[in-house]
Amino acid sequence: MIQKLISKIQKTHAPIVVGLDPMMNYIPKHIQEKAFAEFGETLEGAAEAIWQYNKDIIDAIYDLIPAVKPQIAMYEQFGIEGLKAYKKTIDYCKEKDLVVIGDIKRGDIGSTSAAYAVGHLGKVQVGSKTYRGFDEDFATVNPYLGSDGIQPFIDVCKEEKKGIFILVKTSNPSSGEFQDQLIDGRPLYELVGEQVAKWGEEHMGDTYSYIGAVVGATYPEMGKVLRKIMPKSFILVPGYGAQGGKGADLVHFFDKDGLGAIVNSSRGIIAAYQQEKYAGFGEENFAMASRAAVEDMAADIGSALNTI
Amino acid sequence: MIQKLISKIQKTHAPIVVGLDPMMNYIPKHIQEKAFAEFGETLEGAAEAIWQYNKDIIDAIYDLIPAVKPQIAMYEQFGIEGLKAYKKTIDYCKEKDLVVIGDIKRGDIGSTSAAYAVGHLGKVQVGSKTYRGFDEDFATVNPYLGSDGIQPFIDVCKEEKKGIFILVKTSNPSSGEFQDQLIDGRPLYELVGEQVAKWGEEHMGDTYSYIGAVVGATYPEMGKVLRKIMPKSFILVPGYGAQGGKGADLVHFFDKDGLGAIVNSSRGIIAAYQQEKYAGFGEENFAMASRAAVEDMAADIGSALNTI
Repeated sequence: MIQKLISKIQKTHAPIVVGLDPMMNYIPKHIQEKAFAEFGETLEGAAEAIWQYNKDIIDAIYDLIPAVKPQIAMYEQFGIEGLKAYKKTIDYCKEKDLVVIGDIKRGDIGSTSAAYAVGHLGKVQVGSKTYRGFDEDFATVNPYLGSDGIQPFIDVCKEEKKGIFILVKTSNPSSGEFQDQLIDGRPLYELVGEQVAKWGEEHMGDTYSYIGAVVGATYPEMGKVLRKIMPKSFILVPGYGAQGGKGADLVHFFDKDGLGAIVNSSRGIIAAYQQEKYAGFGEENFAMASRAAVEDMAADIGSALNTI
Repeated sequence: MIQKLISKIQKTHAPIVVGLDPMMNYIPKHIQEKAFAEFGETLEGAAEAIWQYNKDIIDAIYDLIPAVKPQIAMYEQFGIEGLKAYKKTIDYCKEKDLVVIGDIKRGDIGSTSAAYAVGHLGKVQVGSKTYRGFDEDFATVNPYLGSDGIQPFIDVCKEEKKGIFILVKTSNPSSGEFQDQLIDGRPLYELVGEQVAKWGEEHMGDTYSYIGAVVGATYPEMGKVLRKIMPKSFILVPGYGAQGGKGADLVHFFDKDGLGAIVNSSRGIIAAYQQEKYAGFGEENFAMASRAAVEDMAADIGSALNTI
């Protein structure tokens, strides 16, 4: 799957992943009204609105990008109905041949991580049969519990030729509270990064490992250091756009070949029509605004990479 | 809800939470066969088996215990159908007046943590209406992202009079890899513990805070230190029984009043019938084996607490 991700990045010339993190206030009124007319102002109605919104955006942008990253929390907040929309979104993106990174940030003790790994990346046994619960291509994983919380994910990834991105340095303002604490003079995130590199050796693709890292665009200096500590790890970079990261900040997340990283934007793409820059599209044409925002983001990152 | 937890502990004389973490190989054959006969060897069939298994156990033990802790991963591995069984289990436990601790270990950047908080502890807005997605009483939360990943949970907890337990020192063998790293001579888990105590001040009950901590029974010496660092934080203690923790190890997790901690056992209770000690009950009477195991656990912890 890491090979597929790389070859799709090369084909699209866009090391970009679009975060499908729908909030009700992003969804155009005409979509909400139609969904509520059919299902009422219910969890089912919300899930239908989210699904139609996602579908229109995917249809408008799928040829421009290698991957999407649905944030499961945005669906899980609507309970079972929301999670059905999450699953539907994953399945549809895979039909469109997009690589799907489930932003689930799971992580637990061994036997529990094994259940998450099976449910999101693998197959679960039911009597004599097996089934796939959610079936993402990649998932994000939290490292706080250490190796035995990570290993079950690696085991399933090996079997399935899938991958994970482990949180190393997150994009949020308070990420430093624990992640930046110094251990023998070096921040915790570097230790986690070293461990990600080591875990990565267990499951290598041709050039990069299936075991990647999450490093926020909002911390470019740290990205530069972590790029060196994890030379074979693909870096998933959230925090571009709405959270403040810019293309020029991101060059050091990439390798000399312009690979090795994939940059996420969520709100900046899916709610582009709400920005002044794309307001001309109007609410009805929100999906075309998203397409324009993807093109602009690809150009921004592309021109930054040309300076490498 | 922390008051309810405390008063139920006092009534039952059992600072015990039963982990409803069903694995297919725990579920007696007669339950599996009945579920598969009705729904086939499908995800729906697995979910039905899990639900019937949980229900029988809850019916057999609910009067002895204050709380249950379903581990969502064990349901999530069966996809949507599994999560329906998770929700059904929560609702049924609440009908039985049990306090429900959702072991979800979520945690993300601010806006995403807000969605998890709303989905698991609060109400989500849909048009002019609000709904509860999963509706646990407490949830476990991962601290790796720092304050802005925790604050949205605290905000919802305040509104709902609910609580969270934040991972401080987990029970698994490799928890020390990052959690024990020394920062100015003190392990990271102590720093996290201090922060939990600080966050706890924001949402106090009468004697304890609604913001608690997870500290593994497998690390009793660390529990002793953390008890002092977080004097007002209730401690959720996993790792008793199957993972190796014993009643005598646990006294220092409690305060002088015998409160301040609640000890979890999962497999040791729900799959008690598979242990030699309770084999006499037979597979058919698995739920009565669970009841006996709860009584033994309460006695073990009770006698340990008498030595305080």
